[in-house]
Amino acid sequence: VSKAGLDRGPRDALVAGEIAEALAAKAKPRGSLGRLEEMAITLCAIRGERLRELRPTVVVAAADHGLAAEGVSAYPSEVTAQMVQAFVAGGAAICVLADHAGARLVVVDCGVGTPIESQPVLSRRIGAATRNACAEPAMTIAQADQAIVDGGELLAELARDGTNIVALGEMGIGNSTSAAAVTAALLAAPAPACCGPGTGLDAAGLARKVAVVERMLERLGRGRRPQQTLAEVGGFEIAFMTGVILAAIEQRMPILLDGFITAAAALTAVAIDARAREILIASHLSPEPGHRLALDALGLEPLLDLGMRLGEGSGAAVALPLLEAAIAILEKMATFSAAGVTDAGR
Amino acid sequence: VSKAGLDRGPRDALVAGEIAEALAAKAKPRGSLGRLEEMAITLCAIRGERLRELRPTVVVAAADHGLAAEGVSAYPSEVTAQMVQAFVAGGAAICVLADHAGARLVVVDCGVGTPIESQPVLSRRIGAATRNACAEPAMTIAQADQAIVDGGELLAELARDGTNIVALGEMGIGNSTSAAAVTAALLAAPAPACCGPGTGLDAAGLARKVAVVERMLERLGRGRRPQQTLAEVGGFEIAFMTGVILAAIEQRMPILLDGFITAAAALTAVAIDARAREILIASHLSPEPGHRLALDALGLEPLLDLGMRLGEGSGAAVALPLLEAAIAILEKMATFSAAGVTDAGR
Repeated sequence: VSKAGLDRGPRDALVAGEIAEALAAKAKPRGSLGRLEEMAITLCAIRGERLRELRPTVVVAAADHGLAAEGVSAYPSEVTAQMVQAFVAGGAAICVLADHAGARLVVVDCGVGTPIESQPVLSRRIGAATRNACAEPAMTIAQADQAIVDGGELLAELARDGTNIVALGEMGIGNSTSAAAVTAALLAAPAPACCGPGTGLDAAGLARKVAVVERMLERLGRGRRPQQTLAEVGGFEIAFMTGVILAAIEQRMPILLDGFITAAAALTAVAIDARAREILIASHLSPEPGHRLALDALGLEPLLDLGMRLGEGSGAAVALPLLEAAIAILEKMATFSAAGVTDAGR
Repeated sequence: VSKAGLDRGPRDALVAGEIAEALAAKAKPRGSLGRLEEMAITLCAIRGERLRELRPTVVVAAADHGLAAEGVSAYPSEVTAQMVQAFVAGGAAICVLADHAGARLVVVDCGVGTPIESQPVLSRRIGAATRNACAEPAMTIAQADQAIVDGGELLAELARDGTNIVALGEMGIGNSTSAAAVTAALLAAPAPACCGPGTGLDAAGLARKVAVVERMLERLGRGRRPQQTLAEVGGFEIAFMTGVILAAIEQRMPILLDGFITAAAALTAVAIDARAREILIASHLSPEPGHRLALDALGLEPLLDLGMRLGEGSGAAVALPLLEAAIAILEKMATFSAAGVTDAGR
């Protein structure tokens, strides 16, 4: 990958122009493939080269949250470790969807309550769950920094191994509450606007969740640096994903976001380095109210709106075939002249 | 395929219930895969059985339109035949996208101005282009009926050969004008509400198109039977697709619609036999204003909204991987008990 274009920003305008021209020559009305064409241009502009194919990796970062003790999830914390085991065994939704998309799956234990011994899980444990962010900082600044470094190292390694797009996913009981606090703090938004039912809270549970986020925000106070916000109310997996995104700037790696929790990591990354915005693609819109808020702040328009709210990277994996179709059009479709078709649109 | 359920309507409620139960047992919060779950249920309910995999065929019906002489398209009529040649050569968008989706591609000449001699094109020619529907009926009732029969025979043949989902597409310079007239007539909607820029009309071209549709509607008059509307202002490819859809009721074949022109065929089919509504799935929403009107009337919510307006079945082909992902979840994902995950949602 040529990094020469980085001084022109993380999206190479020259490459974007070249791809737009290549698509305009294809035997179809100009722009008639809509966002498929936009995606082909965006992916190539981020990579700084004309892509021939996608080689996607889905990174699922998992960690537990001390604030789960506040009863903010329909599921107990043990489910985080159980789901990581399911990721390894191959039966989880993200395993099926990553396989369907032809993507490699990398599962990272960033601090699951019960350490995962199984071999294929990458161990980047910062601790055994964060502390309860209602009462004290979820982690130290040093821990947040370490998770960011770990995420960056994984991204660099994936880039070296030939991955040219990373889809982000996460697992962590309680993490939509953490993401709500991060989003509310970074966007100066009220807690209720950032809280939704997550994996399935009822009305009482949602009210409890809003109260928990309000306590977190009160403790945090205003005017904090993004790293501080991340350490105070974030999670190990959110910090890890922030590191993945930040490293993707230099590596010119397109990052395909999943749902609300990945968007909170994206907001954090952009608050640390505004260039991160340029390497992000929004796969889908979840019904969590904070997700739309975060995507609007990031200036991202999701590709899909299918009512998905599972996490794990599932929405990103479902969107991958659309991006692959976009690159296939660029690579394989004939031009007007090659196909012998009259180009009235010229 | 069991047809025993047809007396319960083209969607088998028992199968739908069985699939909903199977999805509820999967190791994820209930309903958290949103419309992916809805699609798995719909596909299986239409087929009347639990599907293991999709075996899709994209059917592209092509024909020319006498009304193209009125200057309602940015492209000349010759482009229809040129594009059919491109479908055969493999360089057209639908070739790339069908291949990407693992779908078989069947191209049908329903009456292209220049007959297509190339072997892989199925010849079901009703004539060499329709007559100019501004001045006289586009075709006779007998011709419309023949095209419907031809479409039905192809659908039955595909069903015999193992296809279990058909994606519809079309090619025909001028056919968005014909589709606008069909839609306006069947829905008693004003012409401007059904007319858009198609492949790329400017404002003057669009005004001309609206005037042409208004002349067609005036000539047609009110209170016509759907077959009459089809013959008077439709096209050979629209009639053929109508036949495909009607035959899909008895064959329990899910029909994945593409853009506006396929929706006009769907409206015609539903006007002839209301049960057709049950076997339809809307792949995407195009920017043509008549498309949303038609989908609303059909009670269909599109899966994608990517600003695509190419036709050829391109939007349907892009949506196929989403349906395949839905069936993969049903077939391959583990249950809570198999994965050893605590099911708090029960």
